[in-house]
Amino acid sequence: MLVVMKDHASSGDIQHIVDLLTEAGAEAHLSRGEIKTIIGVIGDREVIYTLDFEGMPGVEQVIRVLKPFKLVSRDFQSEDTVVTVRGSAIGGGAFGVIAGPCSIESEEQMMTTARAVKAAGATMLRGGAYKPRSSPYAFQGMGVEGLKLLRQAGDAVELPVVTEVLDVRDAETVAQYADILQVGARNMQNFMMLDELGTMKRPVLLKRGLSATIEELLSAAEYVLKGGNRDVILCERGIRTFETYTRNTLDLGAVAALKSLTHLPVIADPSHAGGRRELVAPMSRASIAAGADGLMIEVHPDPERARCDGPQSLTPADFEALMADLGPRLALERKLLGVTG
Amino acid sequence: MLVVMKDHASSGDIQHIVDLLTEAGAEAHLSRGEIKTIIGVIGDREVIYTLDFEGMPGVEQVIRVLKPFKLVSRDFQSEDTVVTVRGSAIGGGAFGVIAGPCSIESEEQMMTTARAVKAAGATMLRGGAYKPRSSPYAFQGMGVEGLKLLRQAGDAVELPVVTEVLDVRDAETVAQYADILQVGARNMQNFMMLDELGTMKRPVLLKRGLSATIEELLSAAEYVLKGGNRDVILCERGIRTFETYTRNTLDLGAVAALKSLTHLPVIADPSHAGGRRELVAPMSRASIAAGADGLMIEVHPDPERARCDGPQSLTPADFEALMADLGPRLALERKLLGVTG
Amino acid sequence: MLVVMKDHASSGDIQHIVDLLTEAGAEAHLSRGEIKTIIGVIGDREVIYTLDFEGMPGVEQVIRVLKPFKLVSRDFQSEDTVVTVRGSAIGGGAFGVIAGPCSIESEEQMMTTARAVKAAGATMLRGGAYKPRSSPYAFQGMGVEGLKLLRQAGDAVELPVVTEVLDVRDAETVAQYADILQVGARNMQNFMMLDELGTMKRPVLLKRGLSATIEELLSAAEYVLKGGNRDVILCERGIRTFETYTRNTLDLGAVAALKSLTHLPVIADPSHAGGRRELVAPMSRASIAAGADGLMIEVHPDPERARCDGPQSLTPADFEALMADLGPRLALERKLLGVTG
Amino acid sequence: MLVVMKDHASSGDIQHIVDLLTEAGAEAHLSRGEIKTIIGVIGDREVIYTLDFEGMPGVEQVIRVLKPFKLVSRDFQSEDTVVTVRGSAIGGGAFGVIAGPCSIESEEQMMTTARAVKAAGATMLRGGAYKPRSSPYAFQGMGVEGLKLLRQAGDAVELPVVTEVLDVRDAETVAQYADILQVGARNMQNFMMLDELGTMKRPVLLKRGLSATIEELLSAAEYVLKGGNRDVILCERGIRTFETYTRNTLDLGAVAALKSLTHLPVIADPSHAGGRRELVAPMSRASIAAGADGLMIEVHPDPERARCDGPQSLTPADFEALMADLGPRLALERKLLGVTG
Repeated sequence: MLVVMKDHASSGDIQHIVDLLTEAGAEAHLSRGEIKTIIGVIGDREVIYTLDFEGMPGVEQVIRVLKPFKLVSRDFQSEDTVVTVRGSAIGGGAFGVIAGPCSIESEEQMMTTARAVKAAGATMLRGGAYKPRSSPYAFQGMGVEGLKLLRQAGDAVELPVVTEVLDVRDAETVAQYADILQVGARNMQNFMMLDELGTMKRPVLLKRGLSATIEELLSAAEYVLKGGNRDVILCERGIRTFETYTRNTLDLGAVAALKSLTHLPVIADPSHAGGRRELVAPMSRASIAAGADGLMIEVHPDPERARCDGPQSLTPADFEALMADLGPRLALERKLLGVTG
Repeated sequence: MLVVMKDHASSGDIQHIVDLLTEAGAEAHLSRGEIKTIIGVIGDREVIYTLDFEGMPGVEQVIRVLKPFKLVSRDFQSEDTVVTVRGSAIGGGAFGVIAGPCSIESEEQMMTTARAVKAAGATMLRGGAYKPRSSPYAFQGMGVEGLKLLRQAGDAVELPVVTEVLDVRDAETVAQYADILQVGARNMQNFMMLDELGTMKRPVLLKRGLSATIEELLSAAEYVLKGGNRDVILCERGIRTFETYTRNTLDLGAVAALKSLTHLPVIADPSHAGGRRELVAPMSRASIAAGADGLMIEVHPDPERARCDGPQSLTPADFEALMADLGPRLALERKLLGVTG
Repeated sequence: MLVVMKDHASSGDIQHIVDLLTEAGAEAHLSRGEIKTIIGVIGDREVIYTLDFEGMPGVEQVIRVLKPFKLVSRDFQSEDTVVTVRGSAIGGGAFGVIAGPCSIESEEQMMTTARAVKAAGATMLRGGAYKPRSSPYAFQGMGVEGLKLLRQAGDAVELPVVTEVLDVRDAETVAQYADILQVGARNMQNFMMLDELGTMKRPVLLKRGLSATIEELLSAAEYVLKGGNRDVILCERGIRTFETYTRNTLDLGAVAALKSLTHLPVIADPSHAGGRRELVAPMSRASIAAGADGLMIEVHPDPERARCDGPQSLTPADFEALMADLGPRLALERKLLGVTG
Repeated sequence: MLVVMKDHASSGDIQHIVDLLTEAGAEAHLSRGEIKTIIGVIGDREVIYTLDFEGMPGVEQVIRVLKPFKLVSRDFQSEDTVVTVRGSAIGGGAFGVIAGPCSIESEEQMMTTARAVKAAGATMLRGGAYKPRSSPYAFQGMGVEGLKLLRQAGDAVELPVVTEVLDVRDAETVAQYADILQVGARNMQNFMMLDELGTMKRPVLLKRGLSATIEELLSAAEYVLKGGNRDVILCERGIRTFETYTRNTLDLGAVAALKSLTHLPVIADPSHAGGRRELVAPMSRASIAAGADGLMIEVHPDPERARCDGPQSLTPADFEALMADLGPRLALERKLLGVTG
């Protein structure tokens, strides 16, 4: 931590900070310029994070140079984390494609979708049983009944299944049916849920919040790892900006940055990011090129009648075409990066 | 709802939409121009919100003209909602000042603060027992022990108390101690929590999410009202923008807009918005002038040693000075607006 | 400037930075922790701003603690700058109200507006002769003909006039007719225009860019002052955010922050910020309360037929009512702040 | 254009709008629901863009369904525009790589860079002679002297040259030396400059503003085409968001969207977007995959001593490695998309 003092701060103000630091068990290193004095602070992460000097007399700015996360960082673990469920892996060169409808609507819908995405090469099946909807008047999901249909469809085609935990009280129930527990963008900073999932035995797919920074996403993942659960997949799904043509702005720079900052697998969700079917294919290609470890794609047998996110859902035929297009790209990627997969 | 068709959309595509509308029980009104056809849709809110034509063949844009909320709107209820707890009111001309520390730290801290803010004219006491912290290494709050200290301090000075429900599983426990249940910015779209609070007998203080639109804030409040709980106070606490000098950007245009869109009381939190002590006073004044029904202000007896948000906390002396400054402004406001309070 | 080295940076990398600093004539102060080394740099502003160590081997982050501006700061000049034209002042306790139409349309329109705003208490007259329009198909302004009408109307009612310089090549021409030269939001970082205006004898009204930070606004003003022109008025007019209900988000925290960072007068433009007539009054009140030195308000005798910005324009009657409402607020503000005006 | 009336708007208010429309020469089509009336407006683009009903009595919302641009759209011209200078093409399957330093510093620097980028496969040479710098204390460029060095280097290696016009008064001078005239992000809405460039005989490289929407970028390009100059290249260079780890957020969804909305070539600038050298390669790959027609990349022989943007500049060796990596990707892209180049 660096404490930048105001121009010509008094020696009393400077000494006061130094005293508080000493009191807290940290070390202070002074760097005095003619105009400015800067105090470098050395100490344990836990100590540093309890100190807050902003707004104190004579203090201009406090800069934290120790990142607020540790377990998720490349410094802590240099080799890639590989998350594997039922033989299907994501990370460390293994590319995962999680496909399925936004919301689970019926047995037929799930079975049709499951067969189609499996045939096209998806590695996991998704479907929402509990839907976070801005309006209380929109469809809220099938609940436990939906979880059963998802499990059944996954078993039928031998694909692991991913679904969202919307309410921390349902975590155990969802874990009975799902292989991977998804935390939605709106819950990325639901720290009580992150704590709970940290104690569970299921991998967690953590979506970036609509206005969360890269650092906040990593800090949210740190909550899960700190609880003992090391299997976290990060998902970039678009951030909120002033642009209105696309629903959100897919931040692929964040994907590339995350790959260097953390050992956790990073996937992209081009369906939610753009909110437009025609952008799914180019953004899927771009995600691969940016270094993503996988994709999450919405597929519905009849998007026109989908109860949620129809405009961005691919038909099974669209999805098959997309997978055919992505195949040679992934092969090239592996070749160029020397990944053996 | 308006369905704007693409330029020169085929009559087959147009008819297809009309058929789907009829099937769903809604009415279609066509407006055919030479280049564009627009389909006006008339039907129940519940029906309209299950329809989603975006991305369908020939469709360029879908525009919803019915708002996704109803119970919270001025159209539904024109007179101001007044939230009253233990004789203390907010809304309908009654101005509330909720003051206290970011986090509850000790009995002495709470008692000192409670006495000071009461003496200066605060109408409610606040304090956090469960703290949402970006980093798992930061102080997370005292929990139930903190709730007891808050209640005790509120009782001692005869002020109702407000505190955050961070985990939906704690809602009942928090309600045993608190008069008003706060939903934090990060939980604004935790719909399961909103549903739960909708069934409870405690007023809810709902903070706007960091990147939530005005419409999303109102839709979140709609969840609570739809559950049967009509006592909701909205709180503008700053939105996330590119500006870095202030922590967030206090959106007072939203306060003014909300006052015309909804009958619910609207308050502002200048402490969190700016993140800087020196901005609390000017932003408090501006909030009053923009039409806010109240303020939420962080006060700590010793901000330098506060375990959270010290930089933006006022000392008791600062708070007293602020209240003295706000008094004549509120009086003038009442006079000019002809409010009898 | 602080150069924060990566964890465990090599001594070679550290020495390399120190050598480059010495070579450039700056001083390096090392603060070595067990994990991190930080290099404090002392030197002239001009030297520091030519150095750029980001991306160099071993460097994690470069933090500039010297602000990129000097002449505009309170540190350089503590007393308020007062901009006075034809006896009308803004700043240092003098509150200015600049009113008039978005665009100059006809002699009658200008004369009617000028008389109305003068009668209601405006201190300056505005009107656009050159309009920046996103679409080339929209009305682009009357040009020199408009400037003449503006001047004529200002003279008739004895109000100084303010108008925008859209093209640096027109600066001299505009200066023949106008008392204050406005730089629009889209030109805030048109540095060649800022340089040109810095050499002229007319005060400059500088609008904040749609996505400009406070620091960038001050740096843009620094260009003008560096050229020798000390009379700059800053104008907050709303920034671009994800919110769509209001056209832009009026950032009153920036007004308050600017008042402490700079000695220049700071005004607000509630008409452009909200883009909605009904928000002009509450945002005007809030601007005063936040500490603004003045307001810029669009007034049109017949907003329904205005060629630009009709939705946010006040009628003369609206404006009169607003001024009547603002009067006692300004009086109270002066009393409470002890300003003598 | 659609005029959405408020719930239960009076027939007087509705008739008033219809009258104004008729008066202006447009046609009104009414769609009356029980709660809402919607007025569809049919007329010429030029007429529609002079009408502005927002804020009028009874009007809730005005929705423009005709886009504010025409000449740039795919509807107007379906086949790709190909911009060709000195035998080097961008667009229509031809991929351009524009490389060179942020600012021109010396003959040696330009010659070294020119030879290196030519050898590695760049198709155009860039370099800035006039630099837009936030701070007036930063290096502002070599001016005409720099233009000469750029021309000389381009001629020596037989590459066309691209450079920025910072001041409209310099446009003619810059055009004497440069093959393509760049409009920087800060000037994207400098409409007078766009008008001027529209009359010139040099292709224009138009960078997206830091907070410009896709529609605004296309409208800015429309200014140039409307003036008669059809050779415009659009450039996505990152938008301003709340994220601070990257300098800006590269919006590749915008690249994909632009490719379907317009026939103009679209390139990406990964150097400015990320502001970090290590992100240039992944973002270059992702840009290609998103459908970009080219890249703009900063290369400097000695980034550590670059006078501008060193942290994001590649060395000649980095650039050579990048080009080697991009080659097979471009080949695959051509093969998969069936482009013959």
